[in-house]
Amino acid sequence: MHACSIQSATDLVWREVPTPTPGLGEVRVRVHAAGVNRADVLQCAGKYPAPPGWPSDIPGLEYAGEVDALGAGVTGLSLGDRVYGLVGGGAFAEQLVVHHQALARAPEGLSWTELAALPEAYLTAYDALVLQAGARVGSRVLVHAVGSGVGTAALQIGCALGASVMGTARSQAKLRSAQALGLHDGICVQDALFCVELKARAFEPDVVLDLVGGDYVAESLRALAVGGTLMLVGLTGGRECSLDLGTVLRKRARIIGTVMRSRGLAERIMLHRVLEKELGAWFASGVCKPVVSETFGMRDAAHALARLASNETFGKVVLRNA
Amino acid sequence: MHACSIQSATDLVWREVPTPTPGLGEVRVRVHAAGVNRADVLQCAGKYPAPPGWPSDIPGLEYAGEVDALGAGVTGLSLGDRVYGLVGGGAFAEQLVVHHQALARAPEGLSWTELAALPEAYLTAYDALVLQAGARVGSRVLVHAVGSGVGTAALQIGCALGASVMGTARSQAKLRSAQALGLHDGICVQDALFCVELKARAFEPDVVLDLVGGDYVAESLRALAVGGTLMLVGLTGGRECSLDLGTVLRKRARIIGTVMRSRGLAERIMLHRVLEKELGAWFASGVCKPVVSETFGMRDAAHALARLASNETFGKVVLRNA
Repeated sequence: MHACSIQSATDLVWREVPTPTPGLGEVRVRVHAAGVNRADVLQCAGKYPAPPGWPSDIPGLEYAGEVDALGAGVTGLSLGDRVYGLVGGGAFAEQLVVHHQALARAPEGLSWTELAALPEAYLTAYDALVLQAGARVGSRVLVHAVGSGVGTAALQIGCALGASVMGTARSQAKLRSAQALGLHDGICVQDALFCVELKARAFEPDVVLDLVGGDYVAESLRALAVGGTLMLVGLTGGRECSLDLGTVLRKRARIIGTVMRSRGLAERIMLHRVLEKELGAWFASGVCKPVVSETFGMRDAAHALARLASNETFGKVVLRNA
Repeated sequence: MHACSIQSATDLVWREVPTPTPGLGEVRVRVHAAGVNRADVLQCAGKYPAPPGWPSDIPGLEYAGEVDALGAGVTGLSLGDRVYGLVGGGAFAEQLVVHHQALARAPEGLSWTELAALPEAYLTAYDALVLQAGARVGSRVLVHAVGSGVGTAALQIGCALGASVMGTARSQAKLRSAQALGLHDGICVQDALFCVELKARAFEPDVVLDLVGGDYVAESLRALAVGGTLMLVGLTGGRECSLDLGTVLRKRARIIGTVMRSRGLAERIMLHRVLEKELGAWFASGVCKPVVSETFGMRDAAHALARLASNETFGKVVLRNA
C-alpha cells in the first residue's frame, strides 16, 4: 500500500510501505478519507512523537473506510462494512489496522469525507464537555476557537444537549458561520480579552472548552462560574500561563487537560461506543452535521496541514484517497 | 452569651452578644470547644469576609458541644445530645445555631477538645481526596504540609483507605511526627523543590493534596502521574503560579480548587453525613485519631490564631470554653 511518510517538518512523501496484516481481534480498513488535526502538524514538526504502539512516521488520527480484511477472533464485522474512528496514528494511508472494537459503524447518509471529519472533533468535544466536565441541559458553555473542528463540534453538541453556547473567534466571519450552526452569541477576541464582554452579557460559563491556552486560561478563570470547569484541549495560543490560585480556590474551579491521541485501548473502545450510539444518533438525525472546510487528495497532505496551520479554515480539513 | 468579636487583624474581643434563637429546623448548641483554622486568621486580617448568611464578626468554622435548644420542626435530636460539625462562622462563641441536619452526632470516647479538632480538617481532606480526587486503595497520595491540621487528617484518611501516602514538610521534626501517624515516606522541602526527590523514590502521585500553593503547584504538576489530580486546598506559599499547560494536556492533569467555608446547605448536610458515618466509624475505632497541638481558652483566641500562623504547630489548635 501507499502512505504519507514524514520526511521533514513540511515534507510528507507519498510512498510504498508494507501493507499491514490484521492480528488477533483486529481488522484492516481500506481508508477512503482521513481528517487532519493540529496534532499531525505538530508531529510532522517533530514536536509531538507518536504514542507507543502506533506508526511513528505516518500521521493521521481519524479515518473513514471499509473493512477489507478480518483477523482471527473477529465477530460481528464483515468485509465491506462502513466504519470510521480514531487511531493513535497511521490514517494518512491507503489501509490501516485497528482493534475490532475500537472502531464505530458509520451512520447512513454521510459521505466518506463527512465521516472522516467526525471522530476526533466530536469525541474530543463530547469527552471533554459531557464525560469530563458534566455539561448538560441548561449548562452555560463557552467554546473558544468556535470555528475550529473541535469548536464547531462542541457548539453542535452543546446545542444538542440543550446547553446555552457562547463562542469566541478571532474573526467576525467565523462567528457568523458559527451562528448559522446554532451559536447563541459570539465574541470576536483581540489580545486574549473576553471577560469584560462576557460580564456585559451576564454570561458566566459553567464549562469552558479552551482550544487556545496561553493567556486565555487566566481570562477564562476570571469569567468562570463558581464550581465551573475549564477543559484545556489545545494550545495554539501558547503553553505558558500565569494563574491566580486564589481564584481557583474561591471558585472551586476545575482545570482539566485532555488529549485523545495517547488513550489506551479500553478508553478507545468506550469512546467508539459513544461515537456509534450517542453521537451516531445525532449524526443520523442531522442534529449534528459535519463541517468540512476543505478537502485535499491524500498525496497533498502537506498542503492540507499548511492550510490547517493558517487558522483560516472553518471546521475540518479532510484528505481523500482516489 | 459571649463571643469573640473581630476588632482588628490581631485583636479579638470577648464580649457580650445577643444569644441566638433557633428558628424552624434549627438547633442551638452550647459550644464546649472550637477548632482554629487559617481561614479565621485571614478573616480577622480582613482578607476573607464571612460568606453570606453567617456572622460577619465572629470567626470559628468548627465546634463540638451539646444541643441546648430545639427550634420548631426538629426531630431526632434531644437536649444534651453531643454533636459537632462545620459552620460558615460563629463558632468562637458560647452558643451557636445550626440547621438540625447540618451537624453530626459525636462518636463515643473523644473529649470536646478532640471532637472540635475533627470536622474541618477531616471533611476537607475526605472531600478533596475521596469525593473529588477519587483516591482509593492502592492510590499514591502526596500530602504537602503533612504536619498541618488538614495534612495529618489526609495522612490518616489515606492510610485508612489503603493508599500509599508520601508527605512533605519544612522540618524533619514534623516528618518524624507524621511517620508516627503512619506516613510511609517524607521529604523535607527547601525552596519548594521536591520533584527530584520523588522521582528518586519512584513515587508518582495519582493525587496531590496541596495546602501550600505558590511554587508548589508547578512542581507538583511535574511530579504528577498521567491522569492525576492536584487538589488545591490552601495557599500559605502564595497565590500566584506559572503553569506549563503542555504538561497539563500531556498528563491529562486535573487541577481542582476547593474550600469548605462557602458551601451551601445541601452540601453541608451531605458532608455531615460523611462525618457521622464514614469518618465517624474511623474515629470510633481509632483508625483516625485527632491530632491536637495546643489548646487555649476561648477568650485567648487571638493568641491561638498567632500560634497557628507561626507554622510551628503540629496538627490542630483548639479553643475551649470554660
